[in-house]
This record gives sequence, C-alpha cells and structure tokens, in this order.
Amino acid sequence: MDIQDFIRDIPDFPKPGILFKDITPLLSNHEALVGCANRLAKLSPDNVKIDKVIGIESRGFIIGSMIAERLEAGFVPVRKKGKLPYQVKSKDYGLEYGKDTLEIHVDAIKKGEKVLIHDDVLATGGTAEAVCNLVEELGGEVVQCNFIMELDFLNGRDKLNSPVSSLLSY
Amino acid sequence: MDIQDFIRDIPDFPKPGILFKDITPLLSNHEALVGCANRLAKLSPDNVKIDKVIGIESRGFIIGSMIAERLEAGFVPVRKKGKLPYQVKSKDYGLEYGKDTLEIHVDAIKKGEKVLIHDDVLATGGTAEAVCNLVEELGGEVVQCNFIMELDFLNGRDKLNSPVSSLLSY
Repeated sequence: MDIQDFIRDIPDFPKPGILFKDITPLLSNHEALVGCANRLAKLSPDNVKIDKVIGIESRGFIIGSMIAERLEAGFVPVRKKGKLPYQVKSKDYGLEYGKDTLEIHVDAIKKGEKVLIHDDVLATGGTAEAVCNLVEELGGEVVQCNFIMELDFLNGRDKLNSPVSSLLSY
Repeated sequence: MDIQDFIRDIPDFPKPGILFKDITPLLSNHEALVGCANRLAKLSPDNVKIDKVIGIESRGFIIGSMIAERLEAGFVPVRKKGKLPYQVKSKDYGLEYGKDTLEIHVDAIKKGEKVLIHDDVLATGGTAEAVCNLVEELGGEVVQCNFIMELDFLNGRDKLNSPVSSLLSY
C-alpha cells in the first residue's frame, strides 16, 4: 500500500496559490489509516520508551492517539487558545497562513518525560517549534517530531532542534 | 479501572456556572485511553458491520480514530465551517454555549454505508443531531451515536432518532 495514493491535492485552499494536501481519503480507508499509524509508530526510536504522544489540534489528534496506543504512551492534546479547561502554558507562533497561540495543560508533561510530537503536516515548522518549546518549558524531552508528510520547500525542519521524521515529502 | 476516576471537574469553564468535564487526565493515562476506546467500540452493535466512524471536531477525533481501528472501519472527520478543503455539505446547529456550523466532505459517506458517530460528550444534542442529518443527507445510515459521557440533565438523547450509548452519565 502506498500512503501517497491516499493524499488528495486541493488547489487554492485555504487561499489562492496554496496546494493543500488533503488526508481525508487516507483516514476514510481503514487499511490506509491503520497502515499510516503503524508506520508512524515504527519511526519512533526503538531504544527509548515514550511516555507521552502529543497531537496538535486538530488533525494531529486523529493519528496521534493511535500512535500513543502503539507506543504504550499517554496522549496529550495541544490546542488553540482558550480551548483547554485547566491551567495552561501558552506560546504564540507564526504559521504558514497567519499567527496563532497554542496551549498545553501545565500538568500534561511531567519533568523528565520523553515526548513524541505528532502532526499531519510539517510546513514552515512554526507550530511544531512552539510545541517543542512548550514541552521543554514543562521539563519534558522531545524525542521526535513526526508527521505524515513534510513540505520540503518550506524548510520547516530547520526550525526544529529535535529529530524529525515523516512518511512522505513534497 | 473506573473511567470516571480519570474525568476532572473544572468549574466555570468555558463560562461561569458551567461545570466542565475534562477528559485530558483520561487521555494522558495509557490504560485509561485504551480502556475507554475498547469499551466504546464494544458498545457498537455486534450484528452490524460499521463502514465509517465519524469523529466530531476536535475532541471526537481522538478516540474516534481508535474506535474506527477496532471496528475495521474508515474514519471521517466532521469539522467546523471552513476547515475541510474539498466540497462539503454544511449544517447550522445550536450548541450549549452558542451557535455554529458543521461540515462533512460530500464524498465521505457513500449511499447505504453504516455509520457510527462519536464525540466525547453528549450535552444538548444539537451537535450530534446536525451530524446525524449530514450523514442521512449523504445517504448513510446512523447505526449509533456514542459518547464517553452524557449530561443527562440536558436531555440530549431526546433530539436524536438513532440509538445512543455512553460510558458515563452525569
């Protein structure tokens, strides 16, 4: 099975000139969904026990929880401003199409915990960078950032100090 | 394991007078996360093959995908207005704290497909009712709406014509 066959190109979304990579055909096919989660979990380094998998709102939630199950880890959501109900740590960040704020619960990561960060796409890296900073400020260690796909031409990898893995690159 | 032990009460969120049920302690504990997904999947009727599991943005994405895996189904996200990139069907709905619009891709459900709808909480039922309508307009059959928890005093069940199951009720 080629995961790439389940990614659909949508021209001019969310604005003119952007070619959006739509993962919904992948999600809606059971074998592709499970295969994608299996492969992402296998990217995780063999010799490190991951304590928490972070999924970045919203698309990172979908496969993030499936990766957490495979790695016998807990799942932690990082969300947009104002969505998490308990005490949070916040971080502003620039993203491909504007600016925003991400939040994590202050008790989501314990000091010394090993963390894997998951999102569907690595674009400019601003989002993942903000999440790495949040994890480190809570005393966690980012073992890996993993993505279904990476938009190479945006050089998002360069923003991240942690190891980066992805299944596809464009 | 008692799932209830992993739900945290947050007073006055998102506004004064609301006692918010926070599922993040459940998600962050691996056994609770997996146990919750197992139990929700087991609520699905034994004699019906589910084709698609819908997760409602955003919290419904987290365990929705895990239920889809267990039921050997595809996963379909229903999202807030403007988030899905391909052609959509939209539905306005009233929710506990205001009004909003939900969208589904027009090709997400095929005619005759059996659908399970998942979200974390059943409150007034406005959200789930809108999703049921979207599924039916695409020619799908809602076999079950399932939730981690149900706020009984809001009578959300009364709005739904499809079978409703939940693990906890308050």
